[in-house]
Amino acid sequence: RYGQMETEDPIGTATGLAYTAFGGDILSIEVSVVPGKGKLQLTGKLGDVMKESAQAAISYIRSRQAMLGINENFYQTNDIHIHVPEGATPKDGPSAGITMVTALVSALTNKRIRREVGMTGEVTLRGRVLPIGGLKEKTMSAHRSGLTTIIMPKDNEKDLDDIPESIKKDLTFIPVSHMDEVLTHAFVEGD
Amino acid sequence: RYGQMETEDPIGTATGLAYTAFGGDILSIEVSVVPGKGKLQLTGKLGDVMKESAQAAISYIRSRQAMLGINENFYQTNDIHIHVPEGATPKDGPSAGITMVTALVSALTNKRIRREVGMTGEVTLRGRVLPIGGLKEKTMSAHRSGLTTIIMPKDNEKDLDDIPESIKKDLTFIPVSHMDEVLTHAFVEGD
Amino acid sequence: RYGQMETEDPIGTATGLAYTAFGGDILSIEVSVVPGKGKLQLTGKLGDVMKESAQAAISYIRSRQAMLGINENFYQTNDIHIHVPEGATPKDGPSAGITMVTALVSALTNKRIRREVGMTGEVTLRGRVLPIGGLKEKTMSAHRSGLTTIIMPKDNEKDLDDIPESIKKDLTFIPVSHMDEVLTHAFVEGD
Amino acid sequence: RYGQMETEDPIGTATGLAYTAFGGDILSIEVSVVPGKGKLQLTGKLGDVMKESAQAAISYIRSRQAMLGINENFYQTNDIHIHVPEGATPKDGPSAGITMVTALVSALTNKRIRREVGMTGEVTLRGRVLPIGGLKEKTMSAHRSGLTTIIMPKDNEKDLDDIPESIKKDLTFIPVSHMDEVLTHAFVEGD
Amino acid sequence: RYGQMETEDPIGTATGLAYTAFGGDILSIEVSVVPGKGKLQLTGKLGDVMKESAQAAISYIRSRQAMLGINENFYQTNDIHIHVPEGATPKDGPSAGITMVTALVSALTNKRIRREVGMTGEVTLRGRVLPIGGLKEKTMSAHRSGLTTIIMPKDNEKDLDDIPESIKKDLTFIPVSHMDEVLTHAFVEGD
Amino acid sequence: RYGQMETEDPIGTATGLAYTAFGGDILSIEVSVVPGKGKLQLTGKLGDVMKESAQAAISYIRSRQAMLGINENFYQTNDIHIHVPEGATPKDGPSAGITMVTALVSALTNKRIRREVGMTGEVTLRGRVLPIGGLKEKTMSAHRSGLTTIIMPKDNEKDLDDIPESIKKDLTFIPVSHMDEVLTHAFVEGD
Ligand SMILES: [Ca+2]
Ligand SMILES: [Ca+2]
Ligand SMILES: [Ca+2]
Ligand SMILES: [Ca+2]
Ligand SMILES: [Ca+2]
Ligand SMILES: [Ca+2]
Ligand SMILES: [Ca+2]
Ligand SMILES: [Ca+2]
Ligand SMILES: [Ca+2]
Ligand SMILES: [Ca+2]
Ligand SMILES: [Ca+2]
Ligand SMILES: [Ca+2]
Repeated sequence: RYGQMETEDPIGTATGLAYTAFGGDILSIEVSVVPGKGKLQLTGKLGDVMKESAQAAISYIRSRQAMLGINENFYQTNDIHIHVPEGATPKDGPSAGITMVTALVSALTNKRIRREVGMTGEVTLRGRVLPIGGLKEKTMSAHRSGLTTIIMPKDNEKDLDDIPESIKKDLTFIPVSHMDEVLTHAFVEGD
Repeated sequence: RYGQMETEDPIGTATGLAYTAFGGDILSIEVSVVPGKGKLQLTGKLGDVMKESAQAAISYIRSRQAMLGINENFYQTNDIHIHVPEGATPKDGPSAGITMVTALVSALTNKRIRREVGMTGEVTLRGRVLPIGGLKEKTMSAHRSGLTTIIMPKDNEKDLDDIPESIKKDLTFIPVSHMDEVLTHAFVEGD
Repeated sequence: RYGQMETEDPIGTATGLAYTAFGGDILSIEVSVVPGKGKLQLTGKLGDVMKESAQAAISYIRSRQAMLGINENFYQTNDIHIHVPEGATPKDGPSAGITMVTALVSALTNKRIRREVGMTGEVTLRGRVLPIGGLKEKTMSAHRSGLTTIIMPKDNEKDLDDIPESIKKDLTFIPVSHMDEVLTHAFVEGD
Repeated sequence: RYGQMETEDPIGTATGLAYTAFGGDILSIEVSVVPGKGKLQLTGKLGDVMKESAQAAISYIRSRQAMLGINENFYQTNDIHIHVPEGATPKDGPSAGITMVTALVSALTNKRIRREVGMTGEVTLRGRVLPIGGLKEKTMSAHRSGLTTIIMPKDNEKDLDDIPESIKKDLTFIPVSHMDEVLTHAFVEGD
Repeated sequence: RYGQMETEDPIGTATGLAYTAFGGDILSIEVSVVPGKGKLQLTGKLGDVMKESAQAAISYIRSRQAMLGINENFYQTNDIHIHVPEGATPKDGPSAGITMVTALVSALTNKRIRREVGMTGEVTLRGRVLPIGGLKEKTMSAHRSGLTTIIMPKDNEKDLDDIPESIKKDLTFIPVSHMDEVLTHAFVEGD
Repeated sequence: RYGQMETEDPIGTATGLAYTAFGGDILSIEVSVVPGKGKLQLTGKLGDVMKESAQAAISYIRSRQAMLGINENFYQTNDIHIHVPEGATPKDGPSAGITMVTALVSALTNKRIRREVGMTGEVTLRGRVLPIGGLKEKTMSAHRSGLTTIIMPKDNEKDLDDIPESIKKDLTFIPVSHMDEVLTHAFVEGD
């Protein structure tokens, strides 16, 4: 069922944590990279802030391309599609930023993402990870879905106090302040 | 009469199941592929979610092109038009996703689609089939139109309980969780 | 006077039948094809549905180009303008579909259209002719304007009952279910 | 003063007659043609109908280019700007159609337009001249401005009855049904 | 302080006179011309009429390029940016037309503009200068700002009566009916 | 924590001072320059005035490129992204103008920006620095964030009176009237 952990470690799909008026939820960020001309497509009923977030994710990767082991001309020679299923559900906000970068880097390098990892955090053009809202609700939803590891902004560490111990004991929290740390923990080792 | 089963197994036209304020309905997804420059046209008073659904369908096919037996440069060298008649009726939602992929693959490979098949299901960039709403109403409308086979999301199997036995006995239900299964069952065998 | 039959069999102009809040009317669909780069222009205060209808008309012709005796590269090497005078009157709906295809094919092949013919019907990408509304009012307006032949969707045959005998006796009705039939009856024989 | 007749026979500027909520007025249609890439610019606070009217004017000229003595590639090798001063006054409607064609042809052929001529009439893609509203008010405004010749749609001849004799005696009316007649009367003889 | 006369005769910046709900004001029209591809950028919270005014200014210059001593390909080989500071203040109307032409010609020819000159007037594609509103308020604001010369439309001469003698005695008014006269008086002699 | 001074002197990121309904705040202007085709991207929920401000910043740099030591073709051969984190917070106004120029020049020349410097001021195409609002609130927010130097418009010097002595004693104010002065004081010496 959708809303549950992936059944294998996927390439090009990362699991984000959302916080809406209806509570926490998990969402898949899917990335498809095909030969093209540098067109970026963003679908899944995304709000303006989330679309800008995707553009920042792309720019971050373009500026770190060499360091990330990505082909120099990847942007001009491919079309990139970022889609967030369930297509009828509106989504917005900047907190999927690190999830988008992770899904993009995975699609561009064929590195597998650990399926038990959920993540949330705004990302800047320089890769800093900024705090987000709703950590408690996001964490509870991640727990329900069977995830075991949460990558989160270091600036949200204070919010861990609000999360029930019964949930925290099942989860590993990885507080990060830079995108490099996210990638280190999100990819399957050895990939 | 429109709203009835096709009179022969068509190429480039698949039958979807819609669920609106006025109940269930069937709708044709028509695809035309002509030599061009990679332009995608979407018509038939489609809402934003349905248009995004079409873009996801295209991206899915672009990323699986080799496996689907479709020419490598099909996207850059053709213009693609997806039209959903009756042009005055507003249509929306992601549930025509698998129908769009099926009509597109048929048009691109000249494989015939079984005219007795109706289908409904959201599709993701990776080909997963996600659950939809209104299965009961969609099924009853399919039955009225003379369809005999319904391809539907595996996650909707629980909704089969709500459909009257008198209708179910005339129909074959094919629950699927991936787009590959849809294509296997939608195309005429041997094509 | 505008709103009357043409004074000779025209090329690139077909007569459609409209049905508005003010009753039936006839309208000219004018097509101009000039050397260009594949630009399509739609004017005459057309609503979104009517514009999509024009795009479906173009796609139908592009996919049947060889069969219709139209040059292979006609679309990339011309600019096409579809205009519907009286420019201040809003027009909408899909029922001018077959009229648009007829005017386009005439302009592209230099075949003359019989000036005594009026027509109405939605067209799909595959050339099916779908039913329309307001046949009675459209027919009465055609009669007033001096037209003698009405091409109409086969699915509207049941609506002929509502038309007064005094009008029907002056008119020839040609019910059609495919675009091929429309063209057969709309063009001047021998052209 | 603006709102008066030109002081010499101009090239690329024709005088139209407008009818607004504030009564009749005359307006200049200015056309500038400069080497470029086929861009069309429309300014002067023009409404959508008036903009479409300009596009129809251009298409008419493109389809008659040879007959009008205009260079074959004029459209692809020039940028065309149609401007209607006074820039703060909203303008709309199709009745400036024949004025736009006249100003465009003048700019493209360097033929001078008779400065004492005002004109009004919708134009179709095939050059038919369709009737307009407000002939009485337009005529009185033309008279006030010192114009002596009014080119008008043949279908508006019946409206001449409403114009006071004291004004009609100073004016020559030229009723036309096709654009060719407009050009014959608008250009300075011998040009 | 902004709102005061420039401290030297600038290139590419001309001083316009504005009339808003808050009274008269002066505004700088800044033009930047850099090697590019013919892109025109208009910023400074400009309304639609003022943007169209800028486009008319450009077209006027393109059609007089040789006579103005401007390079033949200036438009295709440069990007042009017209900016009107203070960026947070909305501006609109056609009366900055002659100011825009002046700033553009200065930027394109490196001619210095006399810093003591303010100007107001709509410009047409053919260079005619049309009357504007608010001459009194504009003049008083120009006086406060230290300007000594006002270029204004000849058709506004009648409005000079309304301006207090105490202000008029400090100012030189130059009424003009064509853009050529504006440039003659705006540029530093010998430049 | 975001909202605090950078931990080292950054390249391509400058600190602006904002004034909103909620008081003063500091904001980072991030610039990313990557090989591309001259595309400018502006993200971070920026209002229209702030976007125009960014365009003016770009044009200023393009017109001074040689003097600033920036490669001649930098604009055509790169894509530039200006992002202002926190992506969910709306931002507007022209007062980030000098901050944007500074961040852009830093990114294009690899010069380090002094991390203890905050700045505010509108910039014109010619590099003049125009006054801004909210200097008091901006200054207090800068002080809270640990900044020690404030670059501000010379025309705002009168507003320094309103700032408490207890804050002023910790801060160095640098009033400027031209962009050159901003760059002189913003970059790390020797860079
Ligand atoms: Ca969900
Ligand atoms: Ca999220
Ligand atoms: Ca139906
Ligand atoms: Ca459906
Ligand atoms: Ca009519
Ligand atoms: Ca119709
Ligand atoms: Ca007037
Ligand atoms: Ca008119
Ligand atoms: Ca001011
Ligand atoms: Ca002004
Ligand atoms: Ca903040
Ligand atoms: Ca600011």
